Amino acid sequence: MTQFTSYADITALCARVPAGRDKSAAAVAARQEALTKPLGSLGRMEALVAWLAGWQRRDMPMLGRVETIIFAGNHGVVAQGVSPFPPEVTAQMVHNFASGGAAINQIARVAGSLLRVIPIRLDEPTADITTAPAMDEAAFVEAFTIGFEAVSPATDLLCLGEMGIGNTTVAAALACGLFGGSGADWAGRGSGVDDAGLRRKQSAIDRAVALHQGASPVELAARLGGRELAAIFGATLAARVLNIPVLLDGFVSTAAAAPLGLLSGCGFGHVEIGHASAETGHRRLLAAIGKQPILDLGMRLGEASGAATAILILRAALACHSGMATFAEAAVSGKTA
Amino acid sequence: MTQFTSYADITALCARVPAGRDKSAAAVAARQEALTKPLGSLGRMEALVAWLAGWQRRDMPMLGRVETIIFAGNHGVVAQGVSPFPPEVTAQMVHNFASGGAAINQIARVAGSLLRVIPIRLDEPTADITTAPAMDEAAFVEAFTIGFEAVSPATDLLCLGEMGIGNTTVAAALACGLFGGSGADWAGRGSGVDDAGLRRKQSAIDRAVALHQGASPVELAARLGGRELAAIFGATLAARVLNIPVLLDGFVSTAAAAPLGLLSGCGFGHVEIGHASAETGHRRLLAAIGKQPILDLGMRLGEASGAATAILILRAALACHSGMATFAEAAVSGKTA
Repeated sequence: MTQFTSYADITALCARVPAGRDKSAAAVAARQEALTKPLGSLGRMEALVAWLAGWQRRDMPMLGRVETIIFAGNHGVVAQGVSPFPPEVTAQMVHNFASGGAAINQIARVAGSLLRVIPIRLDEPTADITTAPAMDEAAFVEAFTIGFEAVSPATDLLCLGEMGIGNTTVAAALACGLFGGSGADWAGRGSGVDDAGLRRKQSAIDRAVALHQGASPVELAARLGGRELAAIFGATLAARVLNIPVLLDGFVSTAAAAPLGLLSGCGFGHVEIGHASAETGHRRLLAAIGKQPILDLGMRLGEASGAATAILILRAALACHSGMATFAEAAVSGKTA
Repeated sequence: MTQFTSYADITALCARVPAGRDKSAAAVAARQEALTKPLGSLGRMEALVAWLAGWQRRDMPMLGRVETIIFAGNHGVVAQGVSPFPPEVTAQMVHNFASGGAAINQIARVAGSLLRVIPIRLDEPTADITTAPAMDEAAFVEAFTIGFEAVSPATDLLCLGEMGIGNTTVAAALACGLFGGSGADWAGRGSGVDDAGLRRKQSAIDRAVALHQGASPVELAARLGGRELAAIFGATLAARVLNIPVLLDGFVSTAAAAPLGLLSGCGFGHVEIGHASAETGHRRLLAAIGKQPILDLGMRLGEASGAATAILILRAALACHSGMATFAEAAVSGKTA
């Protein structure tokens, strides 16, 4: 088992993660050419199967064991009045996940995904990022490791999401710290904050980014992030080590994993983004990391709901790839011109 | 059973189709407010459930019996060299659908949809629209009626698609005739025609539209369309009469039903568009009829593949709506600000 004790350990792992297998992606593309449809006519669905193949390192990818993990955390920055919901809702929603009453429970069932919820020290919110680092190195490494170790090597596809009152604020601060801009660029209404709350949120982000600027990507994740974000970062990196493709959910999950894109040797090839969130900063963040989301349904719920919905697209895509007849098998004529 | 013998019969039915039930859509919206998520945070998924409710006329909509129907036809305009595939591929693909080897077979299975394929006089292609009406009134009414009568009243959701070598040409001509513009605006590469073929296609559309201009929307569907397009038109109208919401597939299916949007009293409320096709004219057509597609995956296959993929989104949306706990049931705190 990989042991982490420092930011340097995490940065070092990024430099030695495996690449995808181009040969498997090419095998998918070759089979696609023989199937009974005009070349390329399934569009993104074809590309997604090749993506699964390359990162699973299998010529015929599988979606047998699909797992969705929700990490939950609490945030000291809620003291700045950035959320319309009280922080106890984080634990209440974790209970709701366990009872099967949340949106993600329904979507995961429809999508044929296992669902696990991992709350991390909900009774110990991170520090208020406007006045202190959210976490010190030890606290960050602990949360990162929880995420890293949560990933089972038997998984064929991993969906990651989060729950945490206040976490669109820390996600926006982290994105702002990593990619520049200001609170006004990155802050959205989260779970529905009003105009005054949005101004407080923008101000909190600006103050936090000013306080913590100059840190490395991993240290920014500790200073500006949160425990559930650190765990998503860890799980995303573990999935890369284990050859598991990852579907990230919306704004918070994408921000959580974003330091990977800035770390030498690691990159985002094994990651697709389930959906474009309606949360303000997500499109800016997707542009910054160069990703095109799979779905665009105006969702902004978090809890992996958009990522889990995108599983359905992957299942349809893989079913076409593995189940369709070739032109020869079906005795269908090819192009004449 | 409704009997049609003329264009006038079809136009008359459009004037007396039922409206949706606003009360049922409102019941969905009211329940959504009580569910354990920030208000509106499932975005389009919430709107789609309200759409199902309003057109099914049920406060709690159902997706028990979902049916996908593919209509197939052949087209005299292929004589103009508008498709890279020979016309016998239409019948070969119908056989492939029956054998379970096509993309739609795999997608329908994943989406839990029945699948029916209805070929219409494949051995009697319609006339070449550049020189004559595709169909006379009797032939059009026959194909329309086949579509109309194919819809079972027990269906909760109907997906419509098509197969027909040459049919992106007639679809583009119909769209051009209904909404203006030129062949260059509406012609795409269909199943993959080369540059010279695309120019032939544009020219064929321009000549056909010039020949048939001035006809009513229904008569344009006869003169510029095709048998499978007429059947989609009929099935879409039957679904409206039977209170069945419809998911249309891509460019050809949308063009086939487009006359409905121009006929007094009928409209498109009960129709959603499964996906934005990569075929050139689809976005222009969606703008003309005022529809936002559910998915945008660069697909351009037809055979209802995009509509059937969108069933999955509706299933996820309905599962959330019917299965989630309310704030009260889950003891989750509401907004404080």
